[in-house]
Amino acid sequence: MPEQMTRITLARRPAGTPVPEDFGHETYPLPEPGDGEVLVKVEHLSLDPYMRGRMNAVRSYSAPLEIGETMTGQGIGRVVASKADDLPVGTLVTGRTGWASHAVLQAAEAQVWDESLPQTAALGVLGMPGFTAWTGLREYGRPRAGETLVIAAATGPVGAMVGQLAKAAGLRTVAVAGGAEKCRIAVDTFGFDAAIDHRAHADASSLRKALAEACPDGIDIYWENVGGKVLEAVMPLMNDHGRIPVCGTIAWYSGTDGDTDRLPMVWRTVLTRRLSVNGFIIFDHWDGYPDFLREVAPKVTAGEITWLEDVTEGLDNAVDAFIALLSGGNTGKAVVKL
Amino acid sequence: MPEQMTRITLARRPAGTPVPEDFGHETYPLPEPGDGEVLVKVEHLSLDPYMRGRMNAVRSYSAPLEIGETMTGQGIGRVVASKADDLPVGTLVTGRTGWASHAVLQAAEAQVWDESLPQTAALGVLGMPGFTAWTGLREYGRPRAGETLVIAAATGPVGAMVGQLAKAAGLRTVAVAGGAEKCRIAVDTFGFDAAIDHRAHADASSLRKALAEACPDGIDIYWENVGGKVLEAVMPLMNDHGRIPVCGTIAWYSGTDGDTDRLPMVWRTVLTRRLSVNGFIIFDHWDGYPDFLREVAPKVTAGEITWLEDVTEGLDNAVDAFIALLSGGNTGKAVVKL
Repeated sequence: MPEQMTRITLARRPAGTPVPEDFGHETYPLPEPGDGEVLVKVEHLSLDPYMRGRMNAVRSYSAPLEIGETMTGQGIGRVVASKADDLPVGTLVTGRTGWASHAVLQAAEAQVWDESLPQTAALGVLGMPGFTAWTGLREYGRPRAGETLVIAAATGPVGAMVGQLAKAAGLRTVAVAGGAEKCRIAVDTFGFDAAIDHRAHADASSLRKALAEACPDGIDIYWENVGGKVLEAVMPLMNDHGRIPVCGTIAWYSGTDGDTDRLPMVWRTVLTRRLSVNGFIIFDHWDGYPDFLREVAPKVTAGEITWLEDVTEGLDNAVDAFIALLSGGNTGKAVVKL
Repeated sequence: MPEQMTRITLARRPAGTPVPEDFGHETYPLPEPGDGEVLVKVEHLSLDPYMRGRMNAVRSYSAPLEIGETMTGQGIGRVVASKADDLPVGTLVTGRTGWASHAVLQAAEAQVWDESLPQTAALGVLGMPGFTAWTGLREYGRPRAGETLVIAAATGPVGAMVGQLAKAAGLRTVAVAGGAEKCRIAVDTFGFDAAIDHRAHADASSLRKALAEACPDGIDIYWENVGGKVLEAVMPLMNDHGRIPVCGTIAWYSGTDGDTDRLPMVWRTVLTRRLSVNGFIIFDHWDGYPDFLREVAPKVTAGEITWLEDVTEGLDNAVDAFIALLSGGNTGKAVVKL
């Protein structure tokens, strides 16, 4: 019998945490590469949390998988048949093979992997997870020596890289992980300054107390991998001008959220739409006030910018005017004329 | 009887929406300015939603008012007694007078106001609210011609300025306001392209339908003034790479939040701590991957960066390994060896 390929498909959409019956297993004759394509025999396949999102019907940051489609994922393997001149048989390549023993890849989609590097590093420390950590910390974490960083799923490939990069940049690094063994690894293997076992804390309030002890100067960067209880625990400990790169919300990936808690929807949307959310208080920016006056005062004088006022007469009426303001009773700027 | 001054104080902390009994009214003899100070007779006082936050005992972005303290606020008025050489009697100044008929200000805290500009403009269109709109839109909204901006409290002094600046920058501007009259003003006076009466929509889902019609190309900038129902309606309509300057959450200022909805706490913290929250997807950043490899691969090879793998043998075991991954069963990078 000629060699066959096997693949794992999405058999049905999971309700909550996936179960084995949500996946299908199929066997086929080996496909032939077309012009400019290669057939790759997969040697290692990556499993990553983001794949759970692709199993849902709703739009996430990429199109959902169709029922019957091969489970998505990155793999690394050797070219076993080639119709692409620059990728001869035997070349080690990485690419989006899916959960399958073999995959046909366009040459442009297959990246040649340096044989002097460990093969599986292409999927982890030097692959998508490591690159995620490096990029997100630089662009959105903006670490400064002396600051404190907190990250959950801290022994995972993103967490471990974030922790090591932040530590090398002079930050205090605090891990959140599930179980004593992962906490030990976070400190001993990855050099976190402290590690907190979230399983030892039944609720956000208890977890927050432990975090507050581990972060005596507050939290400057919270790398968001999980959402849920950790986010709830962290928020009140955030320092002014803190940064939260939102990379994942794994606590909510499989959850069916209640009608009452809108946080999962809002927070997941920040991630999936790559939103930039910035709290700001104008008193931090007061240095720019003269620039503003120079630019805008002439437009107000010229009538190019219109304004409305709701004037209340008398200091004694300020209280009533303020109460009305809070319930939307005013239309323009509320002022009291004394 | 010599002239007296009156002031309004915080008599007790409000539970929910303030009531008149939360405020005190006091009368005093006029104070004397000390060296380098002026006594100002207030002519106009500003009322702003942020003052509600100051009435709570909890830390917001500035220290809470103490019981018995004068209600905070900006005013504009004339110097009636001076011990500061550069601020003679008669000078028109603006400063943090509080809710009072008179205030003693340090000369450095009193800003001379240009008499050619309307006096109340110092409190609104050319004061803190207008400056808030101008700064937040530039720094955090980052508008581009052709985009769509949504803002609630759209006829208020911040909303009206944001709308006019965004319109002038070539954006489609959509107002959310309370009542038909404010919607009319938003369009006729402030030039919004469309206005939606949030009172005509009982829930977020209904409001979202109206917003979707008014924003056929989705929403690129949501200026957050209110939180609550509007935020819930807006989020699913946000475009990729959208921006949300968080300036206020007035829908939640007076609320006592339930235990089940964690969104108000999280969102208010984004504001009060001036957090920067950025969702990101690594596939948007793939151009930087070669830079990453150049920098980090040598560190991995040198052992300066450590990594852990959880290797599962055999494609047939991928499903079980993935299910374990989603429930925190792995420690390092999950890979499948075929």
